[in-house]
Amino acid sequence: MTKDAFLGYVFSSRGSASLRKFTSKGGRELYALGAHLLVELKDCNPEILKSLEEVRDALVSAAREAKATIVDISFHEFSPFGISGMVVIAESHLSIHTWPEYGYAAVDIFTCGEVIRPEVAAAYLIERFESKSPSIVEMKRGILSHENIKLPHKCSESEMQSVA
Amino acid sequence: MTKDAFLGYVFSSRGSASLRKFTSKGGRELYALGAHLLVELKDCNPEILKSLEEVRDALVSAAREAKATIVDISFHEFSPFGISGMVVIAESHLSIHTWPEYGYAAVDIFTCGEVIRPEVAAAYLIERFESKSPSIVEMKRGILSHENIKLPHKCSESEMQSVA
Repeated sequence: MTKDAFLGYVFSSRGSASLRKFTSKGGRELYALGAHLLVELKDCNPEILKSLEEVRDALVSAAREAKATIVDISFHEFSPFGISGMVVIAESHLSIHTWPEYGYAAVDIFTCGEVIRPEVAAAYLIERFESKSPSIVEMKRGILSHENIKLPHKCSESEMQSVA
Repeated sequence: MTKDAFLGYVFSSRGSASLRKFTSKGGRELYALGAHLLVELKDCNPEILKSLEEVRDALVSAAREAKATIVDISFHEFSPFGISGMVVIAESHLSIHTWPEYGYAAVDIFTCGEVIRPEVAAAYLIERFESKSPSIVEMKRGILSHENIKLPHKCSESEMQSVA
């Protein structure tokens, strides 16, 4: 992918249109810049967790399944075993750390924008690592209330007052 | 750093000695493989959040402040502005995504082992980005109860029974 194509894509995914609206328990409308899935994969197949090729292919494939745009990939193998890996995507990142000796992998799927489907990536990885006891926590990142949303490239109220 | 030196380091940081012991509300002893700080940096200096050099230097310096061993670095600039970056460390990773238009950065500091000091990295970044409204949530990753800890390279109870 050319740098220009990449930058063009990110422009749309990082714009104000990518804010995710949700309602708090008190009924207040809030917006989040990012959605972060913390995925705990327990009771996995340890042979898969040990393999650099398997773990890398799983995380890259998960990013593709989620419709992410892959920007960079970095995987490292530890001694005696265990893999750490990051897939940087235009919409943020996926990361994994495996502990084959405990049948466990910690996965993070941090995304922004409306197009990407992080839950598809999570479901894919649960299956791929044969996790018999997975759990997922979703954290909203960069929560903004309606009042402090200033759309980029658009006059804010204070700017309009100074012009008048 | 040579590959051998890196592997040697990781061996010690990923061993059973790196488990962090803590007590649940019910008084139960538990162990966690990883400590994950989710750092919300609000009301930052947007000029710093826009600069690839500043953001990269801040995250790399934060990793060093925490006594981490840096393995790989990947940073990307978006159009019209915003930076995504990852610092892979032997003890797991640091990541950052910045939204200068909202004065906001999402930082993750995922670590394992007893030597590293993730809270020092978090404090450093709060100061470096001049965040006037930071918050930190700590998530324990890979929680194990006392019963399901099997030390690697040591017979488990079931293995001993099969021998008897």
